[in-house]
Amino acid sequence: MPNDLLKGKKGIIFGALNEMSIAWKVAEKSYEQGAEFLLTNTPVSMRLGTIDELAAKCNTEVIPADATSDEDLENLVIKAVEKYGKLDFVLHSIGMSPNVRKKLTYDNLNYDFYHKTLDISALSFHKVIAILKKHDAMKEWGSIVALSYVAAQRTLYGYNDMADAKALLESIARSFGYIYGREKKVRINTISQSPTLTTAGSGVKGIDGLMDFTDRMSPLGNATAEECADYCITLFSDLTKKVTMQNLYHDGGFSSMGMSLKAMTQYEKSFDSPDGD
Amino acid sequence: MPNDLLKGKKGIIFGALNEMSIAWKVAEKSYEQGAEFLLTNTPVSMRLGTIDELAAKCNTEVIPADATSDEDLENLVIKAVEKYGKLDFVLHSIGMSPNVRKKLTYDNLNYDFYHKTLDISALSFHKVIAILKKHDAMKEWGSIVALSYVAAQRTLYGYNDMADAKALLESIARSFGYIYGREKKVRINTISQSPTLTTAGSGVKGIDGLMDFTDRMSPLGNATAEECADYCITLFSDLTKKVTMQNLYHDGGFSSMGMSLKAMTQYEKSFDSPDGD
Amino acid sequence: MPNDLLKGKKGIIFGALNEMSIAWKVAEKSYEQGAEFLLTNTPVSMRLGTIDELAAKCNTEVIPADATSDEDLENLVIKAVEKYGKLDFVLHSIGMSPNVRKKLTYDNLNYDFYHKTLDISALSFHKVIAILKKHDAMKEWGSIVALSYVAAQRTLYGYNDMADAKALLESIARSFGYIYGREKKVRINTISQSPTLTTAGSGVKGIDGLMDFTDRMSPLGNATAEECADYCITLFSDLTKKVTMQNLYHDGGFSSMGMSLKAMTQYEKSFDSPDGD
Amino acid sequence: MPNDLLKGKKGIIFGALNEMSIAWKVAEKSYEQGAEFLLTNTPVSMRLGTIDELAAKCNTEVIPADATSDEDLENLVIKAVEKYGKLDFVLHSIGMSPNVRKKLTYDNLNYDFYHKTLDISALSFHKVIAILKKHDAMKEWGSIVALSYVAAQRTLYGYNDMADAKALLESIARSFGYIYGREKKVRINTISQSPTLTTAGSGVKGIDGLMDFTDRMSPLGNATAEECADYCITLFSDLTKKVTMQNLYHDGGFSSMGMSLKAMTQYEKSFDSPDGD
Repeated sequence: MPNDLLKGKKGIIFGALNEMSIAWKVAEKSYEQGAEFLLTNTPVSMRLGTIDELAAKCNTEVIPADATSDEDLENLVIKAVEKYGKLDFVLHSIGMSPNVRKKLTYDNLNYDFYHKTLDISALSFHKVIAILKKHDAMKEWGSIVALSYVAAQRTLYGYNDMADAKALLESIARSFGYIYGREKKVRINTISQSPTLTTAGSGVKGIDGLMDFTDRMSPLGNATAEECADYCITLFSDLTKKVTMQNLYHDGGFSSMGMSLKAMTQYEKSFDSPDGD
Repeated sequence: MPNDLLKGKKGIIFGALNEMSIAWKVAEKSYEQGAEFLLTNTPVSMRLGTIDELAAKCNTEVIPADATSDEDLENLVIKAVEKYGKLDFVLHSIGMSPNVRKKLTYDNLNYDFYHKTLDISALSFHKVIAILKKHDAMKEWGSIVALSYVAAQRTLYGYNDMADAKALLESIARSFGYIYGREKKVRINTISQSPTLTTAGSGVKGIDGLMDFTDRMSPLGNATAEECADYCITLFSDLTKKVTMQNLYHDGGFSSMGMSLKAMTQYEKSFDSPDGD
Repeated sequence: MPNDLLKGKKGIIFGALNEMSIAWKVAEKSYEQGAEFLLTNTPVSMRLGTIDELAAKCNTEVIPADATSDEDLENLVIKAVEKYGKLDFVLHSIGMSPNVRKKLTYDNLNYDFYHKTLDISALSFHKVIAILKKHDAMKEWGSIVALSYVAAQRTLYGYNDMADAKALLESIARSFGYIYGREKKVRINTISQSPTLTTAGSGVKGIDGLMDFTDRMSPLGNATAEECADYCITLFSDLTKKVTMQNLYHDGGFSSMGMSLKAMTQYEKSFDSPDGD
Repeated sequence: MPNDLLKGKKGIIFGALNEMSIAWKVAEKSYEQGAEFLLTNTPVSMRLGTIDELAAKCNTEVIPADATSDEDLENLVIKAVEKYGKLDFVLHSIGMSPNVRKKLTYDNLNYDFYHKTLDISALSFHKVIAILKKHDAMKEWGSIVALSYVAAQRTLYGYNDMADAKALLESIARSFGYIYGREKKVRINTISQSPTLTTAGSGVKGIDGLMDFTDRMSPLGNATAEECADYCITLFSDLTKKVTMQNLYHDGGFSSMGMSLKAMTQYEKSFDSPDGD
């Protein structure tokens, strides 16, 4: 049920690959709520995914950009400002670890890959913001959001160097949130979302078992991509103007749980199993 | 600019004293957004304040209730359900410390007063929720919000036993958020608001100096009561369904600041003053 | 291996019931490290347990005291000061919930019991400190420690109103830590200990399953009562003089874990069980 | 007063430049407590500082190593194991930001420098641990500690990209703490120390004003380098075996303060100053 919450608002949405993507849902919901925006992703993601369909649905276009490239970002921001004037919102939904892809374990990382993980998953956020600020491309009280994960605070086996990247991402949100806030009243936050079965999420080791566990641990169950998009809408809207430098859990309550009855009931079944030790 | 975000939603709003109150602003904004609700406060607060004006503006009525009294709360909830059917949202904006009023210092508390501080400022939240649940008075995905303060995490001189009460309040939000979430999908959160010049806030020792400091520390400045009301609207809406058991800072960034240039610049002037040591 | 770490130090240890108690282990270790101290517990606990044996071992005496009684505490503190002069350390290891004992669920609490839970498990800490301060009974740089649990931050089913009591306890440590620190340089901290099979811990619902889970989640396994006592020694010693107002996790890493391979491997066995859903 | 707390323990201490360094104090205190260890620093730091004096005092030698170089670290670890056998403790006290040195602001960073900041101040910690693990150079229950700062959680103007580096450092401590803990029972923690007037600290913008403020905010005052060394000793000792994956504040209480009377009293003097606005 659209409410024109973003009527007249302009933005850029990074990271929509296909209809499983959180960024895809954010684009759909933002469009429903009256926003106009550019879509962007890397050229290779554009080929692998179906972002053009999304652009057609949302009556907009895709500007390819590698979020680690200053030039690409500069080109994107300039085009956005030419088209819309100053912007109201930006979504950063970008993350990738070559170490995870190559199945290198955390105690045996390739450090060039590690720098790449940080570059793609965290520094890209700094670069996006720095270029927006350099071009004075955000309206006062504009809103910049990046997607994060609880691994930034608590270690999950197999999440590997992406945990460090998310911790860095959240730190960048604070560091730049201070500066962009004091100078231009722009707010910067991260959303710490439940594990989500996106194309990226699917690659994480043991994601199914983990999602079953977090779903049973969370009193409201795991949050879906679509629900995450709803939450983004509130952060882009004028109703959250004084929220900044925060990492906001959108996870059905998981982050505040120590143990639920439902998860423990399941866990205890493991001891009835043939090889439950 | 109302967006019908709460169209058709029903609720109860605790704690509006006069037009400085955050609860007052929440009522106004909720009404603008299409909600219907009962107002409530203690009989003594009703006499001291102007809640009847608010009721008239919002086309509703005031049901007096002492939030520490099970009977009063039961009466209120029954009336609300009679009038509206099941509820979508509840705001708890209640806090008072007899120790603070009597200027007893934290190392010399009256323990009967201390229990009263907890009873009024924290247990009342438990009671409200318990009675809502007992009467099955909340719709699935309903939203319950209480107002808190950063003193729950960080000590501020003069805030006294209210700090402990806020820590307890936030714990109750988690404890009950788990249970009400798993059983009825009801979410429970607290908002940790900037120091605010309400009638209650005015009583806090050194509130002016503190508000100047937090305003200079926060990149977006202190959040006002009106902005806090906007934020409540998002938490009552369907856009935040999977947010629960959280304490959400609405403070212009203060909670994530260690030191701002603006606050330090002011601080350093103190050494130029005639008696700056 | 004693190191005379507490040589010449004097203290009071609350809460030793029997040799499973953490406080018991703290007494033994403190004695080994050269400390002298009074033991105390409620008269009923003294009858149920074997604290007299401990007193004999540690060459000291037991002064009965109900930690919720100002008079009892006053008597205890006066006796301690008469015997030792000013004190260096105090351990508070006290907690009890009548609601848990009576198997009342969190959504159906008895509020008189709730106040009792808070009184015994949290306010008693305030009272102990207030009376120490009133009698100026602590040396500068003295150390006061209370035992807490991660339920103060994250909800565990069945832990009930003890979670709220622990949140309050930790808040009291901060609130009083500020005041006693600035005025007398006394530090106040809480240790958030792994679930521990003490007589008190044994009463918690589902403690076995929970302890298995936390043990598999924690890279170093659950911390034992004896290890907790070692940690207390460091906090009583002169080596931690500038640590105050902190809640310190002593839990084998549990608090920083999202999911371990070991816990997930066990969890996944549950789906092989005859009725694993 | 040495207590033989580290008697027979062997280690490596990174980062002693001169007698203002925290690592210097850690070396002195560890030596007093009976430990043997290698010292290490970069060749350029060795020339600028006086580490040879320290080595003489502690009856040991300095092995030069650039902590960003795998080969240097490998050489160091092999030499340490040859000399001592497996190790009990390692201190990482390393941090540097070329962006800070070149006075580039956070919204105008050089990204090569940024990667260098992370490489020197955070990844070096990963490399040290990875090489220790690869050579199986740590004893079971060994202890690895790195020095951090509250900027990892809260933004301080002028601390720049070092804040991000500290957030990354703390994340690495968790990520590797999980793996090294589960496999070899090695614990990994960070100490979040008060601002300290080391040679490195002196370079931070506005450090004097900041240290005055944090000193007045902290009920026990700022923690000194020497006190930090005492705290390290407890973490290297056998008394803290189950503490891992933690960031431990050693700051006189600063991290748990919202506002102290002392800091506010000073702050309010600023309004009496000739140009207090």
